[in-house]
Amino acid sequence: MNFASDNTAGVAPEIMAALSRVNEGFTLGYGNDAWTKRAEQRIAEVFNRDAAMLLVTTGTACNALAIAHFTPPWGAVLCHHDAHIMTDECGAPEFFGHGIKLVGLRGDGGKISPAILKEALEKPQWGAPHHVAPSVLSLSQATEAGTIYRPDEIRALADIAHAHNLAVHMDGARLGNALARMNAAPDEATWKAGVDVLSFGATKGGAMAAEAIVFFDRERAAGMDRRRKRGGHLLSKHRFVAAQMDAYLTDDLWLRLARHANAMADRLSDRLSSAGFAPVWPVEANEVFTLIPRSACDRLKAQGAAFYERMPDNLPKTAIVKPDSVLVRLVTSFATTAEEVDQFAALASA
Amino acid sequence: MNFASDNTAGVAPEIMAALSRVNEGFTLGYGNDAWTKRAEQRIAEVFNRDAAMLLVTTGTACNALAIAHFTPPWGAVLCHHDAHIMTDECGAPEFFGHGIKLVGLRGDGGKISPAILKEALEKPQWGAPHHVAPSVLSLSQATEAGTIYRPDEIRALADIAHAHNLAVHMDGARLGNALARMNAAPDEATWKAGVDVLSFGATKGGAMAAEAIVFFDRERAAGMDRRRKRGGHLLSKHRFVAAQMDAYLTDDLWLRLARHANAMADRLSDRLSSAGFAPVWPVEANEVFTLIPRSACDRLKAQGAAFYERMPDNLPKTAIVKPDSVLVRLVTSFATTAEEVDQFAALASA
Amino acid sequence: MNFASDNTAGVAPEIMAALSRVNEGFTLGYGNDAWTKRAEQRIAEVFNRDAAMLLVTTGTACNALAIAHFTPPWGAVLCHHDAHIMTDECGAPEFFGHGIKLVGLRGDGGKISPAILKEALEKPQWGAPHHVAPSVLSLSQATEAGTIYRPDEIRALADIAHAHNLAVHMDGARLGNALARMNAAPDEATWKAGVDVLSFGATKGGAMAAEAIVFFDRERAAGMDRRRKRGGHLLSKHRFVAAQMDAYLTDDLWLRLARHANAMADRLSDRLSSAGFAPVWPVEANEVFTLIPRSACDRLKAQGAAFYERMPDNLPKTAIVKPDSVLVRLVTSFATTAEEVDQFAALASA
Amino acid sequence: MNFASDNTAGVAPEIMAALSRVNEGFTLGYGNDAWTKRAEQRIAEVFNRDAAMLLVTTGTACNALAIAHFTPPWGAVLCHHDAHIMTDECGAPEFFGHGIKLVGLRGDGGKISPAILKEALEKPQWGAPHHVAPSVLSLSQATEAGTIYRPDEIRALADIAHAHNLAVHMDGARLGNALARMNAAPDEATWKAGVDVLSFGATKGGAMAAEAIVFFDRERAAGMDRRRKRGGHLLSKHRFVAAQMDAYLTDDLWLRLARHANAMADRLSDRLSSAGFAPVWPVEANEVFTLIPRSACDRLKAQGAAFYERMPDNLPKTAIVKPDSVLVRLVTSFATTAEEVDQFAALASA
Repeated sequence: MNFASDNTAGVAPEIMAALSRVNEGFTLGYGNDAWTKRAEQRIAEVFNRDAAMLLVTTGTACNALAIAHFTPPWGAVLCHHDAHIMTDECGAPEFFGHGIKLVGLRGDGGKISPAILKEALEKPQWGAPHHVAPSVLSLSQATEAGTIYRPDEIRALADIAHAHNLAVHMDGARLGNALARMNAAPDEATWKAGVDVLSFGATKGGAMAAEAIVFFDRERAAGMDRRRKRGGHLLSKHRFVAAQMDAYLTDDLWLRLARHANAMADRLSDRLSSAGFAPVWPVEANEVFTLIPRSACDRLKAQGAAFYERMPDNLPKTAIVKPDSVLVRLVTSFATTAEEVDQFAALASA
Repeated sequence: MNFASDNTAGVAPEIMAALSRVNEGFTLGYGNDAWTKRAEQRIAEVFNRDAAMLLVTTGTACNALAIAHFTPPWGAVLCHHDAHIMTDECGAPEFFGHGIKLVGLRGDGGKISPAILKEALEKPQWGAPHHVAPSVLSLSQATEAGTIYRPDEIRALADIAHAHNLAVHMDGARLGNALARMNAAPDEATWKAGVDVLSFGATKGGAMAAEAIVFFDRERAAGMDRRRKRGGHLLSKHRFVAAQMDAYLTDDLWLRLARHANAMADRLSDRLSSAGFAPVWPVEANEVFTLIPRSACDRLKAQGAAFYERMPDNLPKTAIVKPDSVLVRLVTSFATTAEEVDQFAALASA
Repeated sequence: MNFASDNTAGVAPEIMAALSRVNEGFTLGYGNDAWTKRAEQRIAEVFNRDAAMLLVTTGTACNALAIAHFTPPWGAVLCHHDAHIMTDECGAPEFFGHGIKLVGLRGDGGKISPAILKEALEKPQWGAPHHVAPSVLSLSQATEAGTIYRPDEIRALADIAHAHNLAVHMDGARLGNALARMNAAPDEATWKAGVDVLSFGATKGGAMAAEAIVFFDRERAAGMDRRRKRGGHLLSKHRFVAAQMDAYLTDDLWLRLARHANAMADRLSDRLSSAGFAPVWPVEANEVFTLIPRSACDRLKAQGAAFYERMPDNLPKTAIVKPDSVLVRLVTSFATTAEEVDQFAALASA
Repeated sequence: MNFASDNTAGVAPEIMAALSRVNEGFTLGYGNDAWTKRAEQRIAEVFNRDAAMLLVTTGTACNALAIAHFTPPWGAVLCHHDAHIMTDECGAPEFFGHGIKLVGLRGDGGKISPAILKEALEKPQWGAPHHVAPSVLSLSQATEAGTIYRPDEIRALADIAHAHNLAVHMDGARLGNALARMNAAPDEATWKAGVDVLSFGATKGGAMAAEAIVFFDRERAAGMDRRRKRGGHLLSKHRFVAAQMDAYLTDDLWLRLARHANAMADRLSDRLSSAGFAPVWPVEANEVFTLIPRSACDRLKAQGAAFYERMPDNLPKTAIVKPDSVLVRLVTSFATTAEEVDQFAALASA
């Protein structure tokens, strides 16, 4: 019963097999190999676009490198107040961006609304040399609340951002989950909706350590090869990260894995709702947030269930918080089983 | 016939098997797992020291993080003029060190001599606020010329460095090759000789992507966990990098792999010497540098041999450079075969 | 009628005279001169403490250098949401701090309360490598709302900060105004109350361009000479900045100038209150914030009055905001005259 | 007898008077004043070009800001091995440039030759992501050896630089001295010869603390206002730095002051030559480098003469170094008198 994160799962068998397959013979390092070319081609096919792609091994690196590439050192990145880049990357965007500033916007269910974005950008202070320059809007897909942006929502936000000369970054650590849920085409929910650069995550989805920085406009990737290298993120035996991405995208594996994770989240949500613990936010990806009694929380942990508690400081007004309520985050993955889900729900409501 | 680098080889079977073995069930991410503990314990056993260890996936990250941790932003790192950190990491130490300066020292055969180090540190300029502060001495083991430092040589350099309040870093991307050659105990050639922090490489030796920053004094590692995280170098599915290091160090696998690579270098050196192409520097690790005619170089490449040419601008005076001489670097690995070596040598002298 | 800022005034005559006096003969540059020694001695006398002092020419440099010296790159600085370092220095602390993060705390009247500070520091997230490490509490004296912290308030905040291993920085761009108002001894309101490092401003108070970074513990200044130099903030003809600070502190000039500025703010507040425009926050230094009708605002500007409008988004609940209300900030200085004040008030209420 | 540096002199009377003159009434800060406009206009007139100009208070800031603006973080700056930016700014270019690398080129008499520049740029290593990207050529005018580049020499170097996509920066801390010596028009020796951005120094020439970053192409200055601000280099009472630059450029004051300094250097050179201490490099600006016996050095210091010794490690082959020779640097300024010069020379040869 591990619901602590989707990164507590291992590696999908298809990806593990690809790693073994690619391990034969010699090949030039640093991405000058056939597997890397193939991975880039897969990205192009999936996103229906001749995009530039650079692979790295962590989501934090992927986000920080992408953001830094579109933000001058005196720039600001607008993102949700609870975004991963804001709270969980130990200042990586600030480091890679050479001292940029992240500006957290409030918003229900982990999402930024067009109104809030507009208000933030139309504050009179921007413009003078005393103030940082808003340069990037970063959207998390799925969000930290397990919700997702629909293509038209992305479009509305991107239009505002572009009108103010900001680039649009998407942190797609769970893009597969979001797309599987919406049944949207990858292009419709990214560049066609205004996303300029994407952190495309495979690790949480089932890879070992593989994330792609995807530039939908090739020219804007200029210099990124050196930025990645000096960040220590250019793998020497590069075929092994390329093979992961290739396998992940082959035969829709990524979407199949995401659909399973989502289905497990739905099942968990259903079971918990039946027990009176309805999710506080819509379950739109592979995360369930709900309020359970402290006693249930303790019981679950005693039985070996792994999950994290969260600060209940931004709950929707409809949520009923009792004195002993604990807000818990439950994440499912490609490896989650229905048995685990049912066992967890049973223990929660015991 | 791939002698371009030791990172053109794949992954040693024992390490590949470990990756499969570790891929079962759930486990907490970010290093909070049993495999990571075991890898740290292996390091402690191998180096006979309760050292702090942090794993990353590239040698560049390993070096840059380690160096940055011992150098204030206004500090200088003294290293050989041809050191990898100086020439091949695209400014990673400067990036991670927030604008530190690397000072390249000359020295025969890729090695810094005590006299040159002393002279550099006793220049009158250091001290005033106008000048950067020498903070780290970085030694490459093996060097970029394929030579190695003996324990007493390291001791002599470290004593000078410590007397001037510099910390000693060792870039041990090929430490296994060096130790195998010297038949020296890991502790004798590192912390007992004065090394404060080590970049311990496994990737070139046979891993997929695994390098350890090893602090021989645990207390000096304080803060490094955050430095690594914000560098994007804390893997979420951390067990997979830990498993590589664990397998690499189990049953002396790393030394066995290194011995094979060294033996192949020796064989290549012998064959080429017989053909009149004696190495320009002593073959002390797994690299052979020699001068061959342009015609031989072309013939080898035409036959599919992979290797790099080097600038012949720092050769020993004993080297006989003819008008059509080409300086080539030939690197062997755990995967190099005697057949390849012999084929290469035969073609070179054809 | 210039109330735009206290930096729209020129230089106090006593300081101008000192600049002329010091301009004779040759002297070594970079602070190796008698005037610099004397300025440091004055600081020691004024603050009743053998403090280390480094002079720079801007408040932004002073703040950013001081903060960077106490914050590791992965550290966080807690300050008021409206603090100058947060909003008006274009990311200077982030730049000098190599990517640190500023965390803005809310608080009435520009002030941080112990309760809010405590809550911020006791959030469960701090501690893991995923999160930045709170390292500095920065207090603005006077605040951006023109209010001030009393010694016991500083003490209460500093105790909380120190208990969490944070250092305490004070942005004293208007420290003279605050001390003059409180009639408090400089030591009582700084290091005796727990301030570790002070940005002591003279420019707004009447100097040309002179700010001192004051370390109340000399040992913690180690390395700051190089940090200042590489920031481009070590003046070559250093005697000219030293002479300013020396004159500013001689015979209580700084307090006399501050008292005048404060008195002008009081007069302005009185006149405006009589006209129905009572200040929204207590006038405790040399700034008056009040709500005036748009028509009055326009009339004043038409008559050449200079001042800035502010966003009325954090007003106290007692403030009565009418549809056409404009929140204006009015700053007095050593050079403000009673005539200007009266003229302004008369025009506002015309 | 102060020949330690031209910054040991005070401020020229004309500039001091300008500071007094400008000190009346209120004016907006941060450069939004008439004096700043006038200073920019003077620059445009002097350089015969509608250039963008930003003022700062130190040469180090001026150089570092200018260089950073033309160099990506993964870029390299090529400069003379002994350039001030390389040796005397404590890593300021690396700090402002976010970890750029300075590559020192050798060259006689402090000057880079076209052949050496070409060789450096044509090394095969540049290009791959493993290596930093040469981005700026920085020329010191006058050089650290007191020599100067003629317009055609600058042109030749700039052509090579531009052909390799490098921008050309000139460190003109002593540009006045160089121009006065050559009797060259400011435009001929700067932008018409290929200089893209100039650090135009006034401090050493007779100002208190005033240096201008001059962009000969206005568009390339975009963003520099924020870069300066976050560097802490935007003065609030900006009129006082503007007034210095304005006075410095009015009625050719700068050239008159430079001519005097140069004449004093010539006189010193003559007197010392007569005594057998001919300069080791041509005296082309306001610096004399010569070898004197240790006994003379001691005698001069005992008599209160101030000057610095230099390492004699890059002398021309024609220089006759005796066992007790000391290489000394003697700098004259606008304030140097003929009496001091003669007294020094007499003591040296006593």
